Amino acid sequence: MKILIINPNSDLEMTLAIQETAGSFVEKNIQVTCIQTPGAPKFIETYEDQIKAAPGMIKIVRENEKEYDGFIIACHCDPNLDVIKEITVKPVVGIGEASMKLASMLGHSFSVISMTEQSIPNKEALIRKYHLQDVLASVRAPTEQHKNLKEEEKYLETAKLAIIEDKAEVIVLGCAGMTGVDKRLEKELGVPVLDGVVSALIILIGLIKHNLSISKIRRYRSSKS
Amino acid sequence: MKILIINPNSDLEMTLAIQETAGSFVEKNIQVTCIQTPGAPKFIETYEDQIKAAPGMIKIVRENEKEYDGFIIACHCDPNLDVIKEITVKPVVGIGEASMKLASMLGHSFSVISMTEQSIPNKEALIRKYHLQDVLASVRAPTEQHKNLKEEEKYLETAKLAIIEDKAEVIVLGCAGMTGVDKRLEKELGVPVLDGVVSALIILIGLIKHNLSISKIRRYRSSKS
Amino acid sequence: MKILIINPNSDLEMTLAIQETAGSFVEKNIQVTCIQTPGAPKFIETYEDQIKAAPGMIKIVRENEKEYDGFIIACHCDPNLDVIKEITVKPVVGIGEASMKLASMLGHSFSVISMTEQSIPNKEALIRKYHLQDVLASVRAPTEQHKNLKEEEKYLETAKLAIIEDKAEVIVLGCAGMTGVDKRLEKELGVPVLDGVVSALIILIGLIKHNLSISKIRRYRSSKS
Amino acid sequence: MKILIINPNSDLEMTLAIQETAGSFVEKNIQVTCIQTPGAPKFIETYEDQIKAAPGMIKIVRENEKEYDGFIIACHCDPNLDVIKEITVKPVVGIGEASMKLASMLGHSFSVISMTEQSIPNKEALIRKYHLQDVLASVRAPTEQHKNLKEEEKYLETAKLAIIEDKAEVIVLGCAGMTGVDKRLEKELGVPVLDGVVSALIILIGLIKHNLSISKIRRYRSSKS
Amino acid sequence: MKILIINPNSDLEMTLAIQETAGSFVEKNIQVTCIQTPGAPKFIETYEDQIKAAPGMIKIVRENEKEYDGFIIACHCDPNLDVIKEITVKPVVGIGEASMKLASMLGHSFSVISMTEQSIPNKEALIRKYHLQDVLASVRAPTEQHKNLKEEEKYLETAKLAIIEDKAEVIVLGCAGMTGVDKRLEKELGVPVLDGVVSALIILIGLIKHNLSISKIRRYRSSKS
Amino acid sequence: MKILIINPNSDLEMTLAIQETAGSFVEKNIQVTCIQTPGAPKFIETYEDQIKAAPGMIKIVRENEKEYDGFIIACHCDPNLDVIKEITVKPVVGIGEASMKLASMLGHSFSVISMTEQSIPNKEALIRKYHLQDVLASVRAPTEQHKNLKEEEKYLETAKLAIIEDKAEVIVLGCAGMTGVDKRLEKELGVPVLDGVVSALIILIGLIKHNLSISKIRRYRSSKS
Repeated sequence: MKILIINPNSDLEMTLAIQETAGSFVEKNIQVTCIQTPGAPKFIETYEDQIKAAPGMIKIVRENEKEYDGFIIACHCDPNLDVIKEITVKPVVGIGEASMKLASMLGHSFSVISMTEQSIPNKEALIRKYHLQDVLASVRAPTEQHKNLKEEEKYLETAKLAIIEDKAEVIVLGCAGMTGVDKRLEKELGVPVLDGVVSALIILIGLIKHNLSISKIRRYRSSKS
Repeated sequence: MKILIINPNSDLEMTLAIQETAGSFVEKNIQVTCIQTPGAPKFIETYEDQIKAAPGMIKIVRENEKEYDGFIIACHCDPNLDVIKEITVKPVVGIGEASMKLASMLGHSFSVISMTEQSIPNKEALIRKYHLQDVLASVRAPTEQHKNLKEEEKYLETAKLAIIEDKAEVIVLGCAGMTGVDKRLEKELGVPVLDGVVSALIILIGLIKHNLSISKIRRYRSSKS
Repeated sequence: MKILIINPNSDLEMTLAIQETAGSFVEKNIQVTCIQTPGAPKFIETYEDQIKAAPGMIKIVRENEKEYDGFIIACHCDPNLDVIKEITVKPVVGIGEASMKLASMLGHSFSVISMTEQSIPNKEALIRKYHLQDVLASVRAPTEQHKNLKEEEKYLETAKLAIIEDKAEVIVLGCAGMTGVDKRLEKELGVPVLDGVVSALIILIGLIKHNLSISKIRRYRSSKS
Repeated sequence: MKILIINPNSDLEMTLAIQETAGSFVEKNIQVTCIQTPGAPKFIETYEDQIKAAPGMIKIVRENEKEYDGFIIACHCDPNLDVIKEITVKPVVGIGEASMKLASMLGHSFSVISMTEQSIPNKEALIRKYHLQDVLASVRAPTEQHKNLKEEEKYLETAKLAIIEDKAEVIVLGCAGMTGVDKRLEKELGVPVLDGVVSALIILIGLIKHNLSISKIRRYRSSKS
Repeated sequence: MKILIINPNSDLEMTLAIQETAGSFVEKNIQVTCIQTPGAPKFIETYEDQIKAAPGMIKIVRENEKEYDGFIIACHCDPNLDVIKEITVKPVVGIGEASMKLASMLGHSFSVISMTEQSIPNKEALIRKYHLQDVLASVRAPTEQHKNLKEEEKYLETAKLAIIEDKAEVIVLGCAGMTGVDKRLEKELGVPVLDGVVSALIILIGLIKHNLSISKIRRYRSSKS
Repeated sequence: MKILIINPNSDLEMTLAIQETAGSFVEKNIQVTCIQTPGAPKFIETYEDQIKAAPGMIKIVRENEKEYDGFIIACHCDPNLDVIKEITVKPVVGIGEASMKLASMLGHSFSVISMTEQSIPNKEALIRKYHLQDVLASVRAPTEQHKNLKEEEKYLETAKLAIIEDKAEVIVLGCAGMTGVDKRLEKELGVPVLDGVVSALIILIGLIKHNLSISKIRRYRSSKS
């Protein structure tokens, strides 16, 4: 089984972090590769960033469709996920969709830890798109009070607030760049913490094994089919 | 007042039809121009078509931001509307959003007449995005039984079914390419029929006159601001 | 084009304020008149106030239907809007409905600034009636802490809380009596602020120009038709 | 215990029918009186009909508040229920609200049998107001195919369609004028059939016995309190 | 009329308290008996507690179906209510469902006072099951700050917070063990306070009097029917 | 890795069918065992059937918790899933929840093929519990017209109707007893068909590999913890 993880931005460091998480998770008989997107911004924050990433992402999928058994979009705002689901017959999983739907199976409600305050409305819109608003405890970003903390401590403190004040029962790491910290946070918080990359691999490996893919009958039918 | 209507596809005929509708609607003191999008497909149907239209649309807005007072996206699936709202400080209106929200003010429920069966799920997703699912009577496309009719008659017969079977009280023309037939259909159907281009002009002219635009505080803040 | 704005209460001062806002907004070729409602209370706060305003409002519409091209109900709780939509074939717009639906086109979510705490549940019920609850950030009224401020400052401070604590991206002025302060608040707040009277004029002028009105097929069919 | 049932229309025959249903239902220690509304139309169908009934209804409540322990509004569209709840400290129950909320306790979903097609959107709006849309199987009115049947047979045939086609598990009689036929329909249909007057009496008698009434803290606080 | 109230736990003290509330409420011609459930835990808190109570509850209903005219399940989480509705042809009412649906008729929104923080998600899930989430102000339990208060004072202080901070207009006592304190709380709080046992009696007495019961057509059809 | 699949009924044939599906799906390093539930009915159809299965299911989990790494509940109505999630610290997956949430990732909407008409309301209630009602195209059971077909053909014809009339894009097999036919149906239908057992294995294997389990902080905390 060969899986290609597309990091929609062009940041090498994040690509390597995702690669490491993925490599640690999969069995030896699965070959998993993570590549960054040529022409994409260093970080996907705005709608324009998403648009800029699209041509490179489409190109990657088209060039690798035959060789790989499935694709993961490894940015938690699932940029261009609809178009990627549309253009290939191979299964495609977004880390945002996978981690939040998995979270809904592990507890009464979940909170998403986001990088910045600005990204909260966008994340809320994504959550509604996936019909998950009624299982959502909150979307939270580190605030002023956390500004002197290290990155990982910021997420930890933000997650604590989500658990106590918003009654979250599961924590979703809302950025691919947070990959690798889930198990440490889980230990401190005492609730399940979901890493997007791992979540997407869980779903995608299963789909590939059972030869399942995106329905091509209407919404995701490409113009060629 | 100067308004630029962006036809997200590259079809000249549709551009001219939109221009005619717009020209007939606006007062003389308003200058309205419709242009097609360079590099875009002839018709926007798939998610990939939307992505292909994006760079041209962004370019048009960037090059014309100073000269024009506001922009209309003239394709009823509102392709790339979020990114256009984000990149300019001038007001932007999509014909899908404008026509469906206006429809909700004119009756108990509305139906959207769509070109093809395939576009129905996509339209439903758009309607949910705008939180309009509870005012929707149905999305309907002409079916096999209408295949020998002329285009305009197809919409008319489809709208009749929406009114009788789905109890629609208002009809929304679900494609910019249907522009110009609203008043004839309205006469035959006996209920309000909304043309997307006209609907968007109603909203945009008002916004420009009162100096209103998209909120830049969070969701639509561009990376430069 | 002749527009009649019905102030559902009998307060002359508020009527004049609405008249001034409307007069400043419309082009010279539009004649707009605002009248208060005979027999109505000075201020519409309770359900009984709404009922008391009804006969006068109906009388105004019946007596002026031929002369005017459309009507605006200028109280933000849209009292008797359904019945007015029902009894006339001319287009009717409520300032509550118009301003809140317009707000939904300008940002991720909006907050309504209400006069008093007591009116909040009523406003929430109205928002649900318009299917807008999922775009609502909050309904807020000035609280004890604002009691020594001037009216306009009260709204400003309340709006600031809505933007910061409820993450509102657009502010809606929830009372016709607040008319005229929108642009000053907008400047202070940095987000769009919607005046109900202006919002309703935007919609109504468009409807009249394109000869659109309320659907008479079922919900708003009068007993005579 | 003394209960006053207000028939919001001025039809004597319907008043007597309601009186009979109520008289048969209550124990001897309860005195129940049904009166029609002076100045109201013969039948409440439009929004204007509702408005016309309001002054008479308010007058009845004001004049009888001391003498009676509670009030029922006996028209299934619950006309002016909000204002009546507001103006009196005695408990008030609408037959629409009572019968539909009771129906939700007796099965998976319910259908409302309505008099006319035109009243369906209005009834749907009422159902949404009561947050019951997710328990609703359908609102149905007799159609052309039933036109030669007697009234009672019309409701029976319409209810059969609701049970088979819409999978309704409970039937709600959607008009006070249908009172008295519930038990015969129940026998034929094999599912619970709810009469509005009986449903409201069930709730109101209980409220009076335990000295419960409408909350006066905010939404239903009258201007005098 | 003979009513059997099933206390799903095995606590004699709570059984007696329920019996007292019920005895005080009903007329003399109604015979009401409350029994605890053999084999059930002392207190129903977890899902396993609910399961443990089921066999005893089913046995009680089967053995008493002929003798009694209807059943009440007297635990506010309505344990095993679906199965009890299914196995008997006599009407069955849960105190959770009855009290919360009654609450929705008495004000704009209600809050449930729960015994413990842990039970909040479970209660929220129940509220969604009954489609009441949009009328809910909050579910609240006493917190650390109330730990030194007597039980009754804890509920009082928690209810005060619900009214002020969550804008609740009606209070629902979220545990059968709170029975008997409703009128004292009501006096202090100034809003209606609903006791579950009384609420269920109101509904059940009405159902029995009019010979109404649970629909047996589909969802609650037992395997024998 | 050792997985225990609990067939909540006592049917040996179904147990063997599930065992076969599971055995074919998993890698060699995973040991998967399916056992039926002692004391449970042959087929789970009613709420009482679910209750009867509970003690045996709880016993199985308690006796096998140490030996196995995770559990699957292999009946599509997910009987007693909440209590099983509560009593063990090992991950638990229901085939209903897993297959329907997976379906929501593969297309715009899904339909569930149910065994009997009677089970439809129950399934709808389950779908609402999982917040999936907005992604649901329909729940369908074979009807009279299919009565002479073989079982597998019944599902096929029912699924065809779901795809054409309800516009389903993904089919979910709504009974563990349908296991094994997914790939044949998929071939005929041209859309993804989800087998519950496979879907649950996909999720559970992933959870076990990454050491994830049900949140024990509130809703699923057992009384012992």
